[in-house]
Amino acid sequence: MQTTSNLIHLVPGSPSWPEELRTIEAPPESLWARGRLELLGERPRIAIVGSRAPTPYGESQAARFATVLASAGVTVVSGMARGIDAAAHRFALREGGRTIAVLGNGVDRPWPAGELAETLAREGLLLSEFQPGEPPRPHHFPLRNRVISGLCEGVVVIEAAHASGSLITARWAADQGREVWALPGRVDHPMSRGTHRLIREGATLVESPEEVLAELGIVAPVAARTTRAAVTSAASHVLLGTLQGETLGAEELALRLDRSLPQVLTELVELELAGEVVRAPGGLYRLARA
Amino acid sequence: MQTTSNLIHLVPGSPSWPEELRTIEAPPESLWARGRLELLGERPRIAIVGSRAPTPYGESQAARFATVLASAGVTVVSGMARGIDAAAHRFALREGGRTIAVLGNGVDRPWPAGELAETLAREGLLLSEFQPGEPPRPHHFPLRNRVISGLCEGVVVIEAAHASGSLITARWAADQGREVWALPGRVDHPMSRGTHRLIREGATLVESPEEVLAELGIVAPVAARTTRAAVTSAASHVLLGTLQGETLGAEELALRLDRSLPQVLTELVELELAGEVVRAPGGLYRLARA
Repeated sequence: MQTTSNLIHLVPGSPSWPEELRTIEAPPESLWARGRLELLGERPRIAIVGSRAPTPYGESQAARFATVLASAGVTVVSGMARGIDAAAHRFALREGGRTIAVLGNGVDRPWPAGELAETLAREGLLLSEFQPGEPPRPHHFPLRNRVISGLCEGVVVIEAAHASGSLITARWAADQGREVWALPGRVDHPMSRGTHRLIREGATLVESPEEVLAELGIVAPVAARTTRAAVTSAASHVLLGTLQGETLGAEELALRLDRSLPQVLTELVELELAGEVVRAPGGLYRLARA
Repeated sequence: MQTTSNLIHLVPGSPSWPEELRTIEAPPESLWARGRLELLGERPRIAIVGSRAPTPYGESQAARFATVLASAGVTVVSGMARGIDAAAHRFALREGGRTIAVLGNGVDRPWPAGELAETLAREGLLLSEFQPGEPPRPHHFPLRNRVISGLCEGVVVIEAAHASGSLITARWAADQGREVWALPGRVDHPMSRGTHRLIREGATLVESPEEVLAELGIVAPVAARTTRAAVTSAASHVLLGTLQGETLGAEELALRLDRSLPQVLTELVELELAGEVVRAPGGLYRLARA
């Protein structure tokens, strides 16, 4: 660890070196840091990335995810670009400064320069594998993205055009075995193209920051709880009673209940949707909670 | 085939009986029809279903999907409910009346009654497994949904609340081996809950009716064409040249090109996103079009 004014130079083996960078392909040889170095010792970390030209919807979702994650003790990592990245940093700063910006240039001359960069250098952390004095170069940014994803448990992509830097971060994340979450949006806006593409390619569709927290084990799964809240009709209660301790086919159920097969199939579909009944192999049904 | 005034009664074996109903569990014993019976002889058929209380976004998407599908010769099937169903029928009617409404009551007393039902009985087709005179009953509608999906190659769900009839139709479709497409939307609107749920459960995220047509083999795949349109840099062209006729790892490529490993990995990620390079087992890369 070597310090130049308020810059800190980290190499693998330094006490503050992020361990998770050991597990990625082509890790940086060293990192320059400026700000609260102790943030590197705190876990978990989640990246929030997205378009430089987001919609108001995207920007407000970035603010929502950053606020909820940072206030739950998650460090928000991003690239300090305008738009989604900047919103993520700003709202995480409000929750105790739990945020790291990974740059494509020297941490002594953050780009874009301005109030956000200065606040991050004071209350958060600026990090870069590029030497102090190094200007931002186009080919630095895709490289930088592998450090953003490499530092984190997962990456949330808020809005992204069809081919964009955020998709590169998501691809790095997938390669590195990190979770990739993508926020859907309206199909009539080009800023949804990239996140929809990610979802089609296997990313997890995410609707709320609570789902990310649940995946990190910080709170109970939200989606599952909502599903279980569905109500069941009186007729369905009789069917559920019949399935108590048994695994039965629809025809057998129709016989026992003296109902038509279509009627029983309809109830089974509804109970399956409500999370009350699960399908067993061979067209059989049983209670979800035996 | 038995006719009561302008009602037609179909049973399995009737010339107009829809063959695809033979492949579903608990098919209807008979169907009553009113309108242009010849529509039952035309394929393919796609269901468009969704909320009774859609957003303007959902309604305009229903109109868009119905218009494009019907004008390409696809028969649009739905349930004639207010909202998404009604919009789908209305816009398919404008494209030559290529639309079928499957009812939860007798075709002689369509519900909801009104101008749309009368136009469908004249220019499209009303269909029901329930006897003439039968009123709409709540338990008819989930049953009716299995006929909507059963008649079709696939179901497009436009907007749906978290637990709703459209999800039942989608579940029937999946059980019947039909394709399920779901349109995403903003996460801050409850009408997106149902379609997002479907996508998480394995439905295909759909952004445009052209994707449905592509899946039906009616036009060339759109998404693939867009992907291939991505541009590649000069440096990438050199990398692509090196991969000509070979399958190589990133380290070998870095050696041959005299570039850094992170730089080569970055280019490979970008070329993979652009659909130019594919990954082979063992961390190797080859050209997508050898």
